[in-house]
Amino acid sequence: MQNVAVIGAGSWGTALASVLADNGHSVTLWVRNAKQAENINTNHMNEKYLPDAKLSAKIAATSDLQEAVSGKPVVLLAVPSHAMRQMCRELAPLLTQDVLLIHAVKGFELESLKRMSEVIHEELPGAIATRLAVLSGPSHAEEVVQRQPTTVVVASESEDSMLRSQDLLMNRNFRVYTNPDLVGAEIAGALKNIIALGAGMSDGLGFGDNAKAALLTRGLAEITRLGLKLGAMPPTFSGLAGIGDLVATCTSKHSRNWRAGYLLGQGKKLEEVLAEIGMVVEGVRTTQAANVIAKREDVEMPIANVLYGILFEDKDPRQGVEQLMGRLKTYEMEYLNPDHA
Amino acid sequence: MQNVAVIGAGSWGTALASVLADNGHSVTLWVRNAKQAENINTNHMNEKYLPDAKLSAKIAATSDLQEAVSGKPVVLLAVPSHAMRQMCRELAPLLTQDVLLIHAVKGFELESLKRMSEVIHEELPGAIATRLAVLSGPSHAEEVVQRQPTTVVVASESEDSMLRSQDLLMNRNFRVYTNPDLVGAEIAGALKNIIALGAGMSDGLGFGDNAKAALLTRGLAEITRLGLKLGAMPPTFSGLAGIGDLVATCTSKHSRNWRAGYLLGQGKKLEEVLAEIGMVVEGVRTTQAANVIAKREDVEMPIANVLYGILFEDKDPRQGVEQLMGRLKTYEMEYLNPDHA
Repeated sequence: MQNVAVIGAGSWGTALASVLADNGHSVTLWVRNAKQAENINTNHMNEKYLPDAKLSAKIAATSDLQEAVSGKPVVLLAVPSHAMRQMCRELAPLLTQDVLLIHAVKGFELESLKRMSEVIHEELPGAIATRLAVLSGPSHAEEVVQRQPTTVVVASESEDSMLRSQDLLMNRNFRVYTNPDLVGAEIAGALKNIIALGAGMSDGLGFGDNAKAALLTRGLAEITRLGLKLGAMPPTFSGLAGIGDLVATCTSKHSRNWRAGYLLGQGKKLEEVLAEIGMVVEGVRTTQAANVIAKREDVEMPIANVLYGILFEDKDPRQGVEQLMGRLKTYEMEYLNPDHA
Repeated sequence: MQNVAVIGAGSWGTALASVLADNGHSVTLWVRNAKQAENINTNHMNEKYLPDAKLSAKIAATSDLQEAVSGKPVVLLAVPSHAMRQMCRELAPLLTQDVLLIHAVKGFELESLKRMSEVIHEELPGAIATRLAVLSGPSHAEEVVQRQPTTVVVASESEDSMLRSQDLLMNRNFRVYTNPDLVGAEIAGALKNIIALGAGMSDGLGFGDNAKAALLTRGLAEITRLGLKLGAMPPTFSGLAGIGDLVATCTSKHSRNWRAGYLLGQGKKLEEVLAEIGMVVEGVRTTQAANVIAKREDVEMPIANVLYGILFEDKDPRQGVEQLMGRLKTYEMEYLNPDHA
């Protein structure tokens, strides 16, 4: 049994707190809003983000960050990507030096184009940051709290952190795989949200499963291309954090990114869509970040590019998806093989 | 404009005949049953296999094989895998020596464990067989006849055959990519049906999208492992014939293999399931073939193995899927990397 702090009580933070509680750990769940904390403690529910789930009484919510993390040997971060830097700044004076830090955040910092672990390295003491583990993989929170079979990956440059994270989180329904490729796990997890927006859009426009399968295939090729350029390892994109998460996000009603794309495909404007979903849609920011990174790295990302046009330049979704289907390259190795990118 | 014979008027043969007719070619569709041929010619419909589609009047059906193929510069084979050898024997004396042969069949010959192109090489003159092209990729026939955006791959050892096949079939809605890896296209196309059975079973048992994504990811890893051992090229499994077709088959209501798995997951017996579907479910035979080949090649295929138990040895589906989720290996590189297989 360990004392674990989970930072962020969105759907994913709450679901991970549930897994930890199922495993017998004592979990403190930090949430910025004091009322929400009280609500979780009183009703053992997270009404806003996971309204259908009964939470374990072993999860104690608090809005006091110091109370949440002080003396805790394990801290798990599940905040939106744009909140990561500020969160780390608040955490820096509070964490113990030998804390095991795990993050489960899928996105880039838009302003700096940095990965979450890069932000963490900049804001937290090196001794903590070098032990960081990343949690990724196909894991809709709604299913995890229902104890539906789920597999995830923990990646870290520290083998000890990987194995400790695995031990903490692993149970009968929640299978944790280790993978040494932290960079790949972060990049795959972030970039797949772009393709999920595109897949949702294809569905929203009324295209079929053939079109969506094509989009996923070419989407995986382009996010792999960028990932390899940024130092990721190829097998990660064939694994749970790559294909696995891509499939789960592109084909499930639980995915906010898919749903945002779907609503866009049906003709709604971005502001309406974000208002309707009411939660962070990481793929929107990630599309912005990926386009700038792809340009900087000179990597072709036609899907991210077309989506950028639809999201931010008022491009027509139907015309955009048709443009993607009708691209000129028809020698498959040309778009699959990074050497040709 | 070319004269093309399509052999086999199942849903896929009929859909491909429609694409060819859309492209202005004159299409003869061979079907064994004379009544069905007459029906297609009279009503321009394939009531049994694609009841909702109106077919082009440019498609002329016949049950006379000689009439169908004699003098035709292009012949496209779309028969069930178990009928391929006999079909080739009937075709051998009728084909012209310079015919372009394309096959669109996803399976192995169960008795010999051979790929379709190997059967074709054994039964047809070498001059014809060496020019063979294979058509694969994510392409539900029901969507193709509706002219929904679709991408496919043609693979051949002959560049001329690839380019000719591409020219014949390509149009605005039906995008044809070339790929030199004929072996990979055949193997990926056949083996994904096994994973589709498993995915359907997971859905039929009531497991969620997380579980299905895990199954797809590990499924792709095991079919890639076997494919590479048999001489396929890795990028094919990341392409349309690999991931693309896998996703389309595992997540679509149009997939017979998925549906067969779904019914098995709901507790029906194999005979009932096959009777209910009423068409060939290639994945059942492919599961048998893959298990024997995997043993011969000393390749680990846990999903194919568990499915064999469920299909043919009365293993309980729930127990089988749980067994797959709870396997011991939890170092991801171990199951992703063929070197560790």
